[in-house]
Amino acid sequence: MDTSKTSNTVFTNHVAEEIDATVSSLSPSGVFVLVDRNTEDTVLPRMQMLSKAIASATPISIAPGDDNKTVDALTHVWKQLSDNHATRSSVLINLGGGMVTDLGSFAASTFKRGIPFINVPTTLLAAVDASVGGKTGINFNGLKNEVGTFSDARKVIISTMFFNTLSMTQLRSGYAEMLKHGLIDSGQTFNTLLAYHVEQQDTDRLLTLLKDSVAVKQAIVDQDPREAGLRRALNLGHTVAHAFESVAIERKSPIPHGYAVAYGLVVAAVLSHMKFDFPSTELHKLSDYVRSNYGAFAITCDEYPHLLDIMSHDKKNLYPDTFNFTLLRAPGDVATDTLVTPAEITAALDIYRDLLGLA
Amino acid sequence: MDTSKTSNTVFTNHVAEEIDATVSSLSPSGVFVLVDRNTEDTVLPRMQMLSKAIASATPISIAPGDDNKTVDALTHVWKQLSDNHATRSSVLINLGGGMVTDLGSFAASTFKRGIPFINVPTTLLAAVDASVGGKTGINFNGLKNEVGTFSDARKVIISTMFFNTLSMTQLRSGYAEMLKHGLIDSGQTFNTLLAYHVEQQDTDRLLTLLKDSVAVKQAIVDQDPREAGLRRALNLGHTVAHAFESVAIERKSPIPHGYAVAYGLVVAAVLSHMKFDFPSTELHKLSDYVRSNYGAFAITCDEYPHLLDIMSHDKKNLYPDTFNFTLLRAPGDVATDTLVTPAEITAALDIYRDLLGLA
Repeated sequence: MDTSKTSNTVFTNHVAEEIDATVSSLSPSGVFVLVDRNTEDTVLPRMQMLSKAIASATPISIAPGDDNKTVDALTHVWKQLSDNHATRSSVLINLGGGMVTDLGSFAASTFKRGIPFINVPTTLLAAVDASVGGKTGINFNGLKNEVGTFSDARKVIISTMFFNTLSMTQLRSGYAEMLKHGLIDSGQTFNTLLAYHVEQQDTDRLLTLLKDSVAVKQAIVDQDPREAGLRRALNLGHTVAHAFESVAIERKSPIPHGYAVAYGLVVAAVLSHMKFDFPSTELHKLSDYVRSNYGAFAITCDEYPHLLDIMSHDKKNLYPDTFNFTLLRAPGDVATDTLVTPAEITAALDIYRDLLGLA
Repeated sequence: MDTSKTSNTVFTNHVAEEIDATVSSLSPSGVFVLVDRNTEDTVLPRMQMLSKAIASATPISIAPGDDNKTVDALTHVWKQLSDNHATRSSVLINLGGGMVTDLGSFAASTFKRGIPFINVPTTLLAAVDASVGGKTGINFNGLKNEVGTFSDARKVIISTMFFNTLSMTQLRSGYAEMLKHGLIDSGQTFNTLLAYHVEQQDTDRLLTLLKDSVAVKQAIVDQDPREAGLRRALNLGHTVAHAFESVAIERKSPIPHGYAVAYGLVVAAVLSHMKFDFPSTELHKLSDYVRSNYGAFAITCDEYPHLLDIMSHDKKNLYPDTFNFTLLRAPGDVATDTLVTPAEITAALDIYRDLLGLA
């Protein structure tokens, strides 16, 4: 794959030096660092010791978790920037998981119509997905990332240094996005990923897999930054994932994004099998991996109409009351913009429940 | 000047036909029209009769006036789009003055990370300035356009048809931005503009002047869409204008944007004379025109520190506690990014009060 344009993403174990060098190259009028209450406690003090730029930065803190990725939190960041006299040549460092990088990037890309920002993902999920590719946003009206911008970070600085502090749940959540990239890239990449389990905690192995995974995404984004077509490949599994996440939030019991993606990949693979003869061997390899590593998200058939209603809001749908899915003919062979019917989705959800032992 | 790239701005007296043709060319999944309570009453019913696209559109209405250009109004527009199942291929028509086009463009450029929008300015101010050039935004934290994006309308449709309904105050407000473009363009353009007074109500003459004025702006924006340098020419008069507007809002007695620009142009011309020997004849022609057409915005020297504090937040300032002004060596000879001191601004405000009869 073409990695020539990945220069704004850096993999390093000298994260503080990289941050300082990047900030220094921008000659900013002021430096701000966005954290959530978790990274404020666990990561920020350490980074303030290691990085001159972060030591001198004005911290802005927001409540953690996807259910706090709101207009109110966005407004809080804007207000802190404004009150502390941030200018167009100030820089915002987003230090945290995907919620911090998504919301912080949106705030920076709109404050004074855009100031530079740097993403320093502290979770595997943010490293593999959220911080790379220029999608920013917040949840709104009960819908994930309903508003946002396309806006690139000046630099994305990825280090496995942070990953040692992550729980198995957080690692699995990120790994699901890597599985998605594997399915999009090739059967070989997919099978290589299935051979690894996050419990192994082999940091070197994980870093190699992660670099390849980010490169898969970056190659797609470089060709279609605004999601006019090809980039929709990256939405594999996400229509259902977002619906599951919305329902989980309504139940006051949110699930990690990557877990929702894992379940969504199973539903997408089922639909792919129904419509494109996606190989059943690959489908079962996927569903077995998901079932043993991620369990299942419990849904009943009574909830199907509500799930369909949520899916009808999906950004990929070009027309109301239609459902545009990204599906696969086989691993590595993506079919974007596939129209599926409500009946097909319903049937696929039935099979999902079977495969993951819910029925 | 180069007008080759002005194709997304159309001057027409067949505004409904142009709207319908533009909407039709987008094959949208849904059409939405943003109005404020004023244009909802006065313009929308007429346009619903004339335009099929607007007749079929879902109206979204917000409270009028710059003090309603808020996060709350923005959130309302996002919610209406979301609740009514707008998709990425829906289109939003912004039908109103600069507040409607600024806020509507910001909402559209961020809803689902960006949907197409069309600006149909109904005021001279919006036609000459707000709807052209891709600046979107809302006021925030007491500061004008503190958040927003750079995002181009698919089309800007300008018609003098709406101008017959405008008050003299509204016409004068727009005309001040035309004076600004004249000062930026050349002494000849500036003097041609001084020879016209909006009370003449010569629509053909005004349309000619307007076309030239939009072309001045468009030529600058085309060369520097993101305001990296040259475009700051268009901020002439605006640092002081925004400060006056903020103070007027604090006094619960807002002034029209163009009036603030007229006063700001006088202060900028005074500073230009102090720092660059801008010709005093031109300065006096300007201040006489402003005094007789716009009166003056009353300020006392006790308010200078507060005005300076507001100016210190200006988006053009690259560093805190400095003041970057756009000034003129002569009409047509712009000096962007001129650092001025608080003492110089204070002196210029004194002279402004003298020139406009306030002292």
